[in-house]
Amino acid sequence: MTISSTPISLSDKPEPELLDVVGIGSPLVDVIAQSDDALLERLGLAKGSMTLIDLDQADAMYAAMASSIEASGGSAANTMAGIASLGGRAGFIGKVATDSLGDIFTHDITASGVEFEAAIAKESDGGTGRCLVFVTDDAERTMATHLGVATTFAPGDVDGLLLARTKITYLEGYLFDLPPAKEAMRAAISATHAAEGSVALTLSDSFCVERHRADFLDLLTGDIDLLFANEDEAMSLFKSTTFEGALASFEETGVLAVITRGEQGSVVVTPAGRLEVPATPVDKVIDTNGAGDLFASGFLYGMTNGLDPEKSAHLASLCASEVISHLGARPQRNLGELAQEAGIL
Amino acid sequence: MTISSTPISLSDKPEPELLDVVGIGSPLVDVIAQSDDALLERLGLAKGSMTLIDLDQADAMYAAMASSIEASGGSAANTMAGIASLGGRAGFIGKVATDSLGDIFTHDITASGVEFEAAIAKESDGGTGRCLVFVTDDAERTMATHLGVATTFAPGDVDGLLLARTKITYLEGYLFDLPPAKEAMRAAISATHAAEGSVALTLSDSFCVERHRADFLDLLTGDIDLLFANEDEAMSLFKSTTFEGALASFEETGVLAVITRGEQGSVVVTPAGRLEVPATPVDKVIDTNGAGDLFASGFLYGMTNGLDPEKSAHLASLCASEVISHLGARPQRNLGELAQEAGIL
Repeated sequence: MTISSTPISLSDKPEPELLDVVGIGSPLVDVIAQSDDALLERLGLAKGSMTLIDLDQADAMYAAMASSIEASGGSAANTMAGIASLGGRAGFIGKVATDSLGDIFTHDITASGVEFEAAIAKESDGGTGRCLVFVTDDAERTMATHLGVATTFAPGDVDGLLLARTKITYLEGYLFDLPPAKEAMRAAISATHAAEGSVALTLSDSFCVERHRADFLDLLTGDIDLLFANEDEAMSLFKSTTFEGALASFEETGVLAVITRGEQGSVVVTPAGRLEVPATPVDKVIDTNGAGDLFASGFLYGMTNGLDPEKSAHLASLCASEVISHLGARPQRNLGELAQEAGIL
Repeated sequence: MTISSTPISLSDKPEPELLDVVGIGSPLVDVIAQSDDALLERLGLAKGSMTLIDLDQADAMYAAMASSIEASGGSAANTMAGIASLGGRAGFIGKVATDSLGDIFTHDITASGVEFEAAIAKESDGGTGRCLVFVTDDAERTMATHLGVATTFAPGDVDGLLLARTKITYLEGYLFDLPPAKEAMRAAISATHAAEGSVALTLSDSFCVERHRADFLDLLTGDIDLLFANEDEAMSLFKSTTFEGALASFEETGVLAVITRGEQGSVVVTPAGRLEVPATPVDKVIDTNGAGDLFASGFLYGMTNGLDPEKSAHLASLCASEVISHLGARPQRNLGELAQEAGIL
């Protein structure tokens, strides 16, 4: 056999499979317990907000917490799990440690069908992040997050393979709290646009918007193609005292924006005008944790799978309605089946 | 000041506070996921049963499992959490390791208001026990348990302080699978009777009854004052082919026995005759895990707080109905409030 007879081909490389959405965010395991307002006050937590805490605070707050359940969480990770549950192709990039919580997070996101590009840190670097979720009788959730190794998430932790394959890269606003992560986000935006993908951002939390208003406004001019916010976050972003004012400001940016309003439904601001979509009714709201995350799942899945913005927003409302009807921020039912039963897919 | 003027008293020791029930069992953290029948078959698990597995099997089964949630469990521990939720005074004795799962178990049972007499082992001795719970669409649960350090639970791990204070000691039948734990149970029975307390036993699982029929029958003659079983376990115990046959056999023993029959309610066999009590209706059964455990909570609370057996069985049905209406084997609502709303307490 001579070399020339060996069937060598440099063109056999398969096309990489396209992904609908790749999320980037902090991998967290949620520790969820019922709470009353008095406990929130005693712990100094503002109701409905997310507060960053260190390990000592996390230990002290856990000791004060009622009997809890643990479930994988993290805002962008929840959104990706929802897309996979709808039958979409999702990926997730984030940093975990080699510990029990890291094993749980990795198991759950992988078992959900999401491709996980894990940046791995040693347990001694701070442990996998956890989020103490206090659920009050009004189904509102208040969060205290110990980010652990997620605080060290940096540009070097994004290797870009998933970003080259994705239609949309979805960024968690929370990451702007961490300077190295903020740099990683900027690198991810460039990599996504270079590969002709689009970029979506969620504002995460109105307190987060307060902290990073200038950064977020800057991103709206050229970096971001799609923005998710709730009513409070939208108004905070533009320092607007009315919801109408915030919508008008979004229209000026030309960015596709989806603003959620809880049980009042959502408004999609498109270059062609506004769409108002009602919320999907729920028998009993148990825990609003994950409502915004799963709303984003439905909208992102719809927009990357041929639905128009209105139908995507209907799907988004349906996904949110599933996750608020039980404890925990990941879907417990197959969302694809649920959407088929509802006649949306 | 002379010694004689120092107010010394050797009679100031306070009366130890009485406990309603102390449970003894394996502390476990449940890992709960939806499953289909095909997965159970592939893993070789008999539907509705509890199988003991080693660490390698646990790792392999976890890898095959869907995205899960984690929640403290363990049969007798669940029962004690239920008694505390009713407002009763409960204690629990069991062995955990110094690891994350041990921290979770200890946090949850303590936060529930149960006094926990923990036997502590090093993590290197096998880790805290965990139970993989596969929940199928019919709401049936199938369990695979890696007991970890609970396998080393032995007579030396029961220090007897809680047993001296309790009205009833409640034993988990599962512990009879482990010879050192079986010895610990016998020691606990003697200590309880010596302190004029009563002893209750749950048969746990019909496969467990198959394995330990002779032991369990032997306990019915003098050791046990109250027995919990479901229909299958009761029939298996007496090798009876009919439910009626099993009831007649219980009547011959003279032991107070409570037999649960799922949605068909329960039968209390007393020396004065039988009582039939209906199940409490549930909108939608989500997960039957914990149904028997929480039934026992209600009955034990009732019998130690002045209710008659019939009212205790009604309370038991109510407690079971709460726990089967959500994922997880511990109550998510305050059972005392629920019982007040239902007019039982």
